[in-house]
Amino acid sequence: MNLEISFPMPKSLLVLILLLSSISPLAAQPQLDLMPLPQNVQLGSGQLLINQSFSVGFTGDKDARLQAAAGRFLQHLSRQTAIPLDTRPSDGANGTLVIAVEHASKQYPELGEDEAYELQVSPSGARLTAPTTLGAMHGLETFLQLVQPSPAGFAVPALVIKDQPRFPWRGLMLDVARRFEPISAIKRTLDGMEALKFNVLHLHFSDDQGFRVESKNFPKLQEKGSDGLYYTQDDIRDLIAYAADRGIRVIPEFDMPGHSISWFAGYPDLASAPGPYRIERTWGIHNPAMDPTRESTYKFLDKFVDEMAGLFPDHYFHIGGDEVNGKQWDANPKIQEFMHSHAIKNDQDLQAYFNSRLEKIVSKHHKLMIGWDEILRPDMPQTIVIQSWRGQASLAQAAKQGYRGLLSSGYYLDLMWPAVMHYNVDPLSGDAANLTPEQKQLILGGEACLWSEYVSPENFDSRLWPRAAAVAERLWSAQNVRDVNSMYQRLEAMRTWLEWLGNTHVSSYYLMLHRLAGEENIGPLKVLGDVVEPVKDYTREDLASTPATSLTPLNRLVDAVPPESEKGRQFADMVQQVVAGKATPALYAQIRAELTLWRANDSRLQPLLQHSLLLKEVAPLSHNLSACAATGLQAIDYLTGGQRPPESWTTQQLSMLQQAMKPGHAQLLLMVAAPIESLVRASAGLHPASAARRRRSSARSGK
Amino acid sequence: MNLEISFPMPKSLLVLILLLSSISPLAAQPQLDLMPLPQNVQLGSGQLLINQSFSVGFTGDKDARLQAAAGRFLQHLSRQTAIPLDTRPSDGANGTLVIAVEHASKQYPELGEDEAYELQVSPSGARLTAPTTLGAMHGLETFLQLVQPSPAGFAVPALVIKDQPRFPWRGLMLDVARRFEPISAIKRTLDGMEALKFNVLHLHFSDDQGFRVESKNFPKLQEKGSDGLYYTQDDIRDLIAYAADRGIRVIPEFDMPGHSISWFAGYPDLASAPGPYRIERTWGIHNPAMDPTRESTYKFLDKFVDEMAGLFPDHYFHIGGDEVNGKQWDANPKIQEFMHSHAIKNDQDLQAYFNSRLEKIVSKHHKLMIGWDEILRPDMPQTIVIQSWRGQASLAQAAKQGYRGLLSSGYYLDLMWPAVMHYNVDPLSGDAANLTPEQKQLILGGEACLWSEYVSPENFDSRLWPRAAAVAERLWSAQNVRDVNSMYQRLEAMRTWLEWLGNTHVSSYYLMLHRLAGEENIGPLKVLGDVVEPVKDYTREDLASTPATSLTPLNRLVDAVPPESEKGRQFADMVQQVVAGKATPALYAQIRAELTLWRANDSRLQPLLQHSLLLKEVAPLSHNLSACAATGLQAIDYLTGGQRPPESWTTQQLSMLQQAMKPGHAQLLLMVAAPIESLVRASAGLHPASAARRRRSSARSGK
Repeated sequence: MNLEISFPMPKSLLVLILLLSSISPLAAQPQLDLMPLPQNVQLGSGQLLINQSFSVGFTGDKDARLQAAAGRFLQHLSRQTAIPLDTRPSDGANGTLVIAVEHASKQYPELGEDEAYELQVSPSGARLTAPTTLGAMHGLETFLQLVQPSPAGFAVPALVIKDQPRFPWRGLMLDVARRFEPISAIKRTLDGMEALKFNVLHLHFSDDQGFRVESKNFPKLQEKGSDGLYYTQDDIRDLIAYAADRGIRVIPEFDMPGHSISWFAGYPDLASAPGPYRIERTWGIHNPAMDPTRESTYKFLDKFVDEMAGLFPDHYFHIGGDEVNGKQWDANPKIQEFMHSHAIKNDQDLQAYFNSRLEKIVSKHHKLMIGWDEILRPDMPQTIVIQSWRGQASLAQAAKQGYRGLLSSGYYLDLMWPAVMHYNVDPLSGDAANLTPEQKQLILGGEACLWSEYVSPENFDSRLWPRAAAVAERLWSAQNVRDVNSMYQRLEAMRTWLEWLGNTHVSSYYLMLHRLAGEENIGPLKVLGDVVEPVKDYTREDLASTPATSLTPLNRLVDAVPPESEKGRQFADMVQQVVAGKATPALYAQIRAELTLWRANDSRLQPLLQHSLLLKEVAPLSHNLSACAATGLQAIDYLTGGQRPPESWTTQQLSMLQQAMKPGHAQLLLMVAAPIESLVRASAGLHPASAARRRRSSARSGK
Repeated sequence: MNLEISFPMPKSLLVLILLLSSISPLAAQPQLDLMPLPQNVQLGSGQLLINQSFSVGFTGDKDARLQAAAGRFLQHLSRQTAIPLDTRPSDGANGTLVIAVEHASKQYPELGEDEAYELQVSPSGARLTAPTTLGAMHGLETFLQLVQPSPAGFAVPALVIKDQPRFPWRGLMLDVARRFEPISAIKRTLDGMEALKFNVLHLHFSDDQGFRVESKNFPKLQEKGSDGLYYTQDDIRDLIAYAADRGIRVIPEFDMPGHSISWFAGYPDLASAPGPYRIERTWGIHNPAMDPTRESTYKFLDKFVDEMAGLFPDHYFHIGGDEVNGKQWDANPKIQEFMHSHAIKNDQDLQAYFNSRLEKIVSKHHKLMIGWDEILRPDMPQTIVIQSWRGQASLAQAAKQGYRGLLSSGYYLDLMWPAVMHYNVDPLSGDAANLTPEQKQLILGGEACLWSEYVSPENFDSRLWPRAAAVAERLWSAQNVRDVNSMYQRLEAMRTWLEWLGNTHVSSYYLMLHRLAGEENIGPLKVLGDVVEPVKDYTREDLASTPATSLTPLNRLVDAVPPESEKGRQFADMVQQVVAGKATPALYAQIRAELTLWRANDSRLQPLLQHSLLLKEVAPLSHNLSACAATGLQAIDYLTGGQRPPESWTTQQLSMLQQAMKPGHAQLLLMVAAPIESLVRASAGLHPASAARRRRSSARSGK
């Protein structure tokens, strides 16, 4: 295998992208519900109607994957419109949509393949041209997103789209080690990724809490390390083929030398202290680590990497490499002796020694090594890729030293931040903005990450979607695509589109509320659930009375509600209009209607809360919602009555609202308290509170 | 094979059932969300908590099917509570729930097997006893339905349930011929059937519009007759195993000699007029029928039944036999000559001749013949079973002649009637009520039927669930279980439970509304959708400007909304309180809130309707909703103001409401018009309108 083929895109392509990304994207044009937004859209006049005779033909190369993609496209189109279509693409060059691909893509997608496409739609037909199958597949997804009802029936507007990605590495990392996800969940994730033009699925397969891939060379890895929850090698091959059909690479991660207790359950001799070991159930950073001083460790890893390198066709292989606390090393006299005799000064240097040995093994099996920030040491070859959880600064630092990198800091979906926070994080901002063009080229893109301490198969989709779509757009679209309102409007469309594609973020919320409510009407519970969000960052662990483990049931309201409250955001936007002095009577009426519903909700909800152990904890939150809403209604009365409230009232309400804003009840945040505070301040003629009430904490690795 | 084994239950069991069914069911006891309601429930004190140590053990027979059922039970319980459980049943006799089964059931469930069970739950554990595996499986479903949140966590109340079915044949017939349903849809239906204790899945596999089972003897049946949409023999075996695991028999129906155009597409020589034939796309009764006068027809059918008898293990085999109009026979001189020479007087007699020949073939292959009413002729053997689409009278008639029968009249789910209409239909009412006990014993039960002219994989679940649960209860529970309010309350719980089990009646509605609304907010469309119902009976065909076919897209609002409007029913109940003089201020406020929302809805919805060809047709309906709501608010003003409206107002409003009640717009009915009429009449001091406003038309076969 030629290692060079997986290096980043050729310079000529990069120049083209830089040129194109300076063309302004569709700023002044009518909204199209496309995500990620294409590089260039020129609207024409008229539209192409979708009817029963819709067909697909080919003029260029048509490899099996392209034909399969066209077949799936027709199935989607038929399902989307409910119009029965012949879902077999035609053999010939005729069709309502004609696809012209210059040449087939590689058997498995590779870093740096050309993903550009051009889509022309006129009232009489459509044409999709692309250098490779990968580009054509992206174009088909764009076409599906363009289909909308019209006065004449389902239609696509006449237009020309010229599109290609800004970054060649647009990934999603799923932690299937801490909590396992079944293959069906991964497949529907791949369907969603395809729609959003992600092209890398990075699976964090092993950690202290689980080892999730079948090894035939070392079967005790899965037998002792997984509770029976692992992917067989057939599952993996099936998944890789499914992903490749959708233009998506699959990168395995096996975290070493730390985060590896699940390995030691079957193979205690790998560890730096004697066993026996059992799968770890608690979260956090644990002491056990592989013994980097014994040759048997490398012999094991050589045989292991050999097997996995054969199973995973991608050229890249992720070795983790993060968060080794060195305690087992410090406590082991033999390891200390080894360090002394080899002039290894500290644990960091010992890990560097391990990484250097491991890199040679990975290389020997024709793979390029990826790892988290910690693996970057001056003696590592420049073929490695650094995945940064520390931020643009460390990425820029790596690039200056000639290393390629991926940004994940700011893209941790499990921290429960709103989509806009991720959307505003750019791999080429901060220190990275000052790199030379050649150095910038080393920044390949990024990966959204979902660590799974609080993720079950049930809420997996809602932790991922739709927020991951904001990251998809950041990594694909031009850097100056930054309109947050437009993003949210399109994100709402994606929320539904992803559910069409089989994801369950909407339907699971409904079921989880029903679990909590039992035989009762979920109405009042949903009113509360719609205006709260889980606490952010790692606050959930800080607030827990007993630490959560991998066996903790995820059946509380905090596990059910979406990470971002749509209702809360909309309410805050309405209040923003009031504060800006732009309120109309209709807007006041709408705000009043919401507040009135919330004020009445506590008395409707309390009887239900008393029925259920799981819901008892939300009682104070429910009380706060109604109390805040009552305050909000009074504030509106003052605002519309043209009368200032008494100072004592203002003081009292602001103090109550401060309390209501604090996390603490049921690990949830009440998202309407801050906007109601704004109403109170406006009614009292006070300046708005600091806009940055939503404190943004720096991401920790969280693994 | 011994034919006698599949005869109805032994008399001793019948006597037992008659005795038990006279014990009063839980009339005065607190509501448990069980469906079908058990024969006897004795509540104890306390409850059994479900926690992580919950386990299942066995003391009696534990065949593989029982162990698999216990494993699925544990998976359901774990999913229902989100508590991680070891989902492998124990090998031994210990467990939180101990199952004691006397003996295993047959490999495939059979008519008349003992399905009784007894479930005892105490705070310290539970015990499930049953003569057979089938009964134990029913008891496990009952247990799952009993799990509810409590102040102490998820729990099952302490109780003793003694339960067994009233009828041994509790079926669901799906028409997969007119429109095909994928295996995945049938499987989730089986999951729902298991939960509701249905025990027969009857698949209407062939009709004019399609032939849906692979035949190896006659491959042109599926090749020319199915558009590629058929079940392979492997699919069928998989389905039968899946059903047997859930205690459900699978009965195939191949409709003959009419409703058979799809056969003729591949084998035109079977028909009574020369071909060629193509799959029929239109609905209704068509002329082509098999030629009953040619020996080659019987030779074909002998070989066909032989193959299918081997594929389907159940002892019963359904030959259809309905709706032959005889026109091809009348027009064929050779057939006329045959009738003359054999002294066959008319087409009915010719069909009887065909049935008689077919019955011998079916018998020869060790199956018992079932058919629709028309097959009953004095010369048929008493081993046949009559499935009645004509009603209790024809069923009683058959029983008097010694024939066994099943009721389907009154259970046609595709006619879009509310659950209560089906619930009130009893196989042993009407003429059947006057049968002797021995004759009554011949009435085996019934089958809910879903004919599929307007059923797609997308709305399949909502056409079936939750209404089919009302039929399940009628066929299982005691005859005197008739409380409609209780039924609806439990039906609402089943609506959610069935969605937990993978059915999509709730989630598909959401998606179908989104299809119609495109990028717009579905809120106002849902407000309208929630208070309309599809027109009833076969009105949809009468109202269509162009006749629907099997290729017509099912993407209109009428295809998306549930057959029964929950909101409409609840509103009618509230109005009933007003009319009965029992209204409280809170009730008036609630009615006002609904009416206010509806009054404002048209102006919110109209812009959306103008965007979309598919929605244009609902504009008048949306207008009517708002107009009716405005009238309703005025009526409430009169009622609460203690003032009579002017006579001219009353006349005008009643006339407007009459118009609004008529079907005609978008094939939908506005379900709140009639209750608003009641408000207007009450405000004017007029008598309520006739209660039977919802005309019940007699069912036609509809096939």
